[in-house]
Amino acid sequence: MEKKERLRAIVEGSVFTGIIQFLILASAVVFVIESDRQQLEVDPYATHFIVLDVVFLVLFSIEYVLRVYIEPKKRDFVFSFYGLIDLVAILPSLFLVPGFRVLRILRFLRIFRIFKATRFILAVDRLGAALREIQQELLALVILSLMFVYLAACGIHFFERNAQPEAFGSILDSMWWSVVTLTTIGYGDVYPTTSGGRLFTALVALVGVGLIAIPSGLLASALTEARVEREKSEEGEKEDEEQED
Amino acid sequence: MEKKERLRAIVEGSVFTGIIQFLILASAVVFVIESDRQQLEVDPYATHFIVLDVVFLVLFSIEYVLRVYIEPKKRDFVFSFYGLIDLVAILPSLFLVPGFRVLRILRFLRIFRIFKATRFILAVDRLGAALREIQQELLALVILSLMFVYLAACGIHFFERNAQPEAFGSILDSMWWSVVTLTTIGYGDVYPTTSGGRLFTALVALVGVGLIAIPSGLLASALTEARVEREKSEEGEKEDEEQED
Amino acid sequence: MEKKERLRAIVEGSVFTGIIQFLILASAVVFVIESDRQQLEVDPYATHFIVLDVVFLVLFSIEYVLRVYIEPKKRDFVFSFYGLIDLVAILPSLFLVPGFRVLRILRFLRIFRIFKATRFILAVDRLGAALREIQQELLALVILSLMFVYLAACGIHFFERNAQPEAFGSILDSMWWSVVTLTTIGYGDVYPTTSGGRLFTALVALVGVGLIAIPSGLLASALTEARVEREKSEEGEKEDEEQED
Amino acid sequence: MEKKERLRAIVEGSVFTGIIQFLILASAVVFVIESDRQQLEVDPYATHFIVLDVVFLVLFSIEYVLRVYIEPKKRDFVFSFYGLIDLVAILPSLFLVPGFRVLRILRFLRIFRIFKATRFILAVDRLGAALREIQQELLALVILSLMFVYLAACGIHFFERNAQPEAFGSILDSMWWSVVTLTTIGYGDVYPTTSGGRLFTALVALVGVGLIAIPSGLLASALTEARVEREKSEEGEKEDEEQED
Repeated sequence: MEKKERLRAIVEGSVFTGIIQFLILASAVVFVIESDRQQLEVDPYATHFIVLDVVFLVLFSIEYVLRVYIEPKKRDFVFSFYGLIDLVAILPSLFLVPGFRVLRILRFLRIFRIFKATRFILAVDRLGAALREIQQELLALVILSLMFVYLAACGIHFFERNAQPEAFGSILDSMWWSVVTLTTIGYGDVYPTTSGGRLFTALVALVGVGLIAIPSGLLASALTEARVEREKSEEGEKEDEEQED
Repeated sequence: MEKKERLRAIVEGSVFTGIIQFLILASAVVFVIESDRQQLEVDPYATHFIVLDVVFLVLFSIEYVLRVYIEPKKRDFVFSFYGLIDLVAILPSLFLVPGFRVLRILRFLRIFRIFKATRFILAVDRLGAALREIQQELLALVILSLMFVYLAACGIHFFERNAQPEAFGSILDSMWWSVVTLTTIGYGDVYPTTSGGRLFTALVALVGVGLIAIPSGLLASALTEARVEREKSEEGEKEDEEQED
Repeated sequence: MEKKERLRAIVEGSVFTGIIQFLILASAVVFVIESDRQQLEVDPYATHFIVLDVVFLVLFSIEYVLRVYIEPKKRDFVFSFYGLIDLVAILPSLFLVPGFRVLRILRFLRIFRIFKATRFILAVDRLGAALREIQQELLALVILSLMFVYLAACGIHFFERNAQPEAFGSILDSMWWSVVTLTTIGYGDVYPTTSGGRLFTALVALVGVGLIAIPSGLLASALTEARVEREKSEEGEKEDEEQED
Repeated sequence: MEKKERLRAIVEGSVFTGIIQFLILASAVVFVIESDRQQLEVDPYATHFIVLDVVFLVLFSIEYVLRVYIEPKKRDFVFSFYGLIDLVAILPSLFLVPGFRVLRILRFLRIFRIFKATRFILAVDRLGAALREIQQELLALVILSLMFVYLAACGIHFFERNAQPEAFGSILDSMWWSVVTLTTIGYGDVYPTTSGGRLFTALVALVGVGLIAIPSGLLASALTEARVEREKSEEGEKEDEEQED
């Protein structure tokens, strides 16, 4: 039992964590290089990459088994957010089927573990709490945005379908314009050319700018409230201490 | 009377609401598919679509009659926000005139009913209250933005009319550039090429970035105040309870 | 003296104000139409426009004289913000010199009077107070942004001058890219193509997104403070009243 | 010793500071003009520029020596933020090696001294304190953004590599698209054309808009808290004064 405790101290220590983070980054870099090779259509390193892949797979599998072993509540860990990510990260490679190999990208999700590091834990907690506080509003906002994407697509389709049938001929195609305009990305591959379409775009852009302003306002208020409360509770503790004196 | 109450419970229940929401979404999907067919200039399904349209019309009409029937204050419902949307959604189809058929898009507005769902009602209320709190500011901001669109168009027209007469030859045409630049969309179909025009654009972009920052700041302050007040009233209630004890 | 008071009531009344606002808008519309005519290079309406111009000039001049006449503190009005705008709006037309005619655009600035309307006065006051509260920060931010525009231009010039000498050959030209990128407009007329330039752009874009976030954060905090104080003073008044009872 | 004090008063006085700020701006302007000359490939002013360069070098070196001389704690100054900038600004020119001449750009960093001016010092302090308050959150956000850039690049590479191998053939190339899309710049040089790629872009854009909203929300809450605290301490001081009375 004590051995388990010692193993646990090692696995959760900064050296082990650092090595794992390095391996995750390394596997991401390898993934990038491999995709570059495929582009060049010269693939003399293919064997090397498969070897590397197997190495990563073995290492991450060992780590996963270790993590499950040291955990007192094994079930809770396996079905926790980070536990599932760890499992998903090794599962696809286990099959080594060519079509599934692309799923190695999921391995990179493990990098999120970095936010369990001591220096970020408070900041991430605070942000996470604020986001949870406004999750209903954000969900409603996402639904509202999807509606606006649809309505804007219908509108621009009506104005531009005759002038530019290849870009605005169907509502589905027009939705691409909706997304690019409402998010103010504006690639410039599709844009209205008729007067009516341009006037409508001005309206849509106004709504888009308004929609984008909402999440930052929501977050600001939730974070401010959290700050004020934290302070109050700190003051309350101080006063309690003073009364005890 | 009791029968009416039971009917009311059904119509406002989650099953009926779910079915209606599904029908609204379905009619939106049908609308999209139909517009795709028109693009392909093959329209073998035309009859199917008209049949579907009549089905949707009949179903939504029945629902509307039901809603009016179960409502104790019929007049209030008919002229309420959701009541008017419901009416507008079935009226155009009643005529079935080809030119009016495009108005079926209005039917989709009924999807806004989703925000009357229990899980969103608080979030939407809070957001709505904050937006009402700052409505004068937002209206002033919209007017200010329209002024800037006009002034920016006059300015760029002055700088670029000689270099690019097809894009900036008239103030009306230049307004298109104003909108695309002030909202930071930047499609890239029109942009200044002279030094004066570029310098002016830098100024306009600065104003644009500033204008976009205002709504999110306004919303943040209104939401924060609402939060602080809600908390106060909760504390007040607590204190009252304590005093009563 | 009483006649002056009655005149004052008329001039500051809603009917007179409405007519003036309409005239300002009308003169803006005429300005737009005139610029359109010039584009078409047919100018059969030229005489009409000059007549209209003289009419606007006469009407605005009469209004200006009236405003000065009814004002008890004439000097204060003439040198006030709105007084100067009113003067500037009629001065250029007085000369009727072709080159100066473009200055009629200044007439449109008078539309800002709309923000003296009762329904906006509170909202505009609140926004103005908040902006004054953060004016030092905003000024510092503008200077900081100008520095970043310069530094980003130097950087991209270094990376891209060989690959795209026509767009990034000089720092002055590169500044155009800086402005378009830092404000996230992204027209797409100039963009980096080298790896170094793209990496540098990623950095600049990160800074740009950060800079844009600052004004809305500043405004939110200033508006929140103003709200909290307003509420406190309202509560204070209530308490005073209660104590008096 | 008194002479040193008098010298110190001069060096830190507004006249001397103004001259130095002017020289820094002048050296930036010279740098811009020189880069323009190089573009024209006529360089008849080359000697003039080298002379000017030497003049700037001598003046800034004298200033640096003066600043070190008047400082009581010389070591602290040399290794302070502004001290290091001052040193870095003259070092590259000292070598006068052609390759190093580009480093004269660093000289411009000295313009940041402007934020030590009295009128900005409070505003910059407040902003700086708020940014320090949220630095952990901002750092986490930068890391999160880099992850999203990588993940978005992998995704779009998967969807578009066959349709547009030159732009999305490798993950490294796809990252350029990630940056341009997540920051909503949208140059328009690369954009998805397949349905899958466009749907994925909609998702990425949603995340991008959300990420951009976070820093302004964070800043707003930190600034609001700082304001509330400042006010409290001011009130506290007032109350203390009243109690003393």
